[in-house]
Amino acid sequence: MSNFSILKERLMQETKVKISEAVGEDLMIVQAMNTIDELNKVLNSLSKRLREWHAYTLPELNHDVEDNEAYCRLISTKSYDELKDEFGKNTMGGKLSDEDIEIQIDIAKNITETFKMKDKLVLYVETLMKRIAPNISILAGSSIGARLIVNAGSIKRLAMMPASTIQMLGAEKALFRHLKTGARPPKHGFIINHPYVAAAGNSKGKVARILADKLSQCAKIDFFKGDIVADKMRKELDEKFKKE
Amino acid sequence: MSNFSILKERLMQETKVKISEAVGEDLMIVQAMNTIDELNKVLNSLSKRLREWHAYTLPELNHDVEDNEAYCRLISTKSYDELKDEFGKNTMGGKLSDEDIEIQIDIAKNITETFKMKDKLVLYVETLMKRIAPNISILAGSSIGARLIVNAGSIKRLAMMPASTIQMLGAEKALFRHLKTGARPPKHGFIINHPYVAAAGNSKGKVARILADKLSQCAKIDFFKGDIVADKMRKELDEKFKKE
Repeated sequence: MSNFSILKERLMQETKVKISEAVGEDLMIVQAMNTIDELNKVLNSLSKRLREWHAYTLPELNHDVEDNEAYCRLISTKSYDELKDEFGKNTMGGKLSDEDIEIQIDIAKNITETFKMKDKLVLYVETLMKRIAPNISILAGSSIGARLIVNAGSIKRLAMMPASTIQMLGAEKALFRHLKTGARPPKHGFIINHPYVAAAGNSKGKVARILADKLSQCAKIDFFKGDIVADKMRKELDEKFKKE
Repeated sequence: MSNFSILKERLMQETKVKISEAVGEDLMIVQAMNTIDELNKVLNSLSKRLREWHAYTLPELNHDVEDNEAYCRLISTKSYDELKDEFGKNTMGGKLSDEDIEIQIDIAKNITETFKMKDKLVLYVETLMKRIAPNISILAGSSIGARLIVNAGSIKRLAMMPASTIQMLGAEKALFRHLKTGARPPKHGFIINHPYVAAAGNSKGKVARILADKLSQCAKIDFFKGDIVADKMRKELDEKFKKE
């Protein structure tokens, strides 16, 4: 009995170690990317709220500045009178009390801070990507690369995927529509945003296939901690796609 | 022609003044309450994200601390080792790098700041409510009072409503279900949260009717800038509902 309980204790210990080892760096990327997506939604909805509110007093600013980050930064850094001088000298907006303006500035500051938070996360993902998937980062860029890893679930699963699956990652909806209704199959998923594919004109499908093929090699090399080969690949592809 | 253009100019001027005067303080309450609702959603979703992420390294903290604000404050103020000592000495959580922990702390700080922002907005609404709707604030509390104004659209529209409408504000869905399908009519909307109604046991409907009647009087008095009568009302109702 005593032997048995020692065995049990040991096994428990070992399981705990294994669970704790299973937390890999690619999981961090998955979490960070999900948080970035959430932040994008949050920033959008909060900026809209501030715009609606602030437009009571200075609708011209809302109209002239389309970028949310710039809009919030303006409100949080310049005084109301400065903004009025700059954007709407004869504004129709109502006069608000100092209290109202103050709380709007507070909200704008909070949103600006959250924008900075998002930038930090993007940088963090970049650093991680360079470390755990250097080849993918070089060839696809850290943002598209991270999307691929998130969609696959982990770098291991991405490494096990055939190139054609990598080509379609992010286009699941169109792919299943194709399988179900016989509509035209998608030619590319996330990699549509890659400069090669975006610039390819009518041969997007072909370029996407070649790129996915190379990315699949990169994923395998990165997963098995191989050398850096992506810069050479990138040079070759640069040549190839320039000629066409 | 010159006379005509002068007239046009004058009319434009006058319209601008009227538009700018139409921005009343109750509009500020509407905006602030909408922003508070948005912030509640935001805080919820961001906290969930952080919980999911942080649970990789210290699942015990996620389990033990249910309140989102407390959870984020703990992560943003205590070091990882302190948290580990306090919540999970033999944690199964994986070991994260300093970088990972740092970004989690940043997110926790950001969420904590956003919680503070929300508290500021709640205070702001309270101040406004005391100024533009002192009687409603005394009788219903600033939070329920603000909800009533937001739902009515403005203090003017709330003042014009019959008591029975005020009683139902916030229960529109149940009311229309009643009208459409003949289901039982709702007895109360937002005022269900009022201490009188909440404590009323089986006579919730009756208490809600009496309260809505008094609130309707308060709304009229507040809109026409009358005296403070709500403290007397409150005393009467306190007596009345205690007896039952």
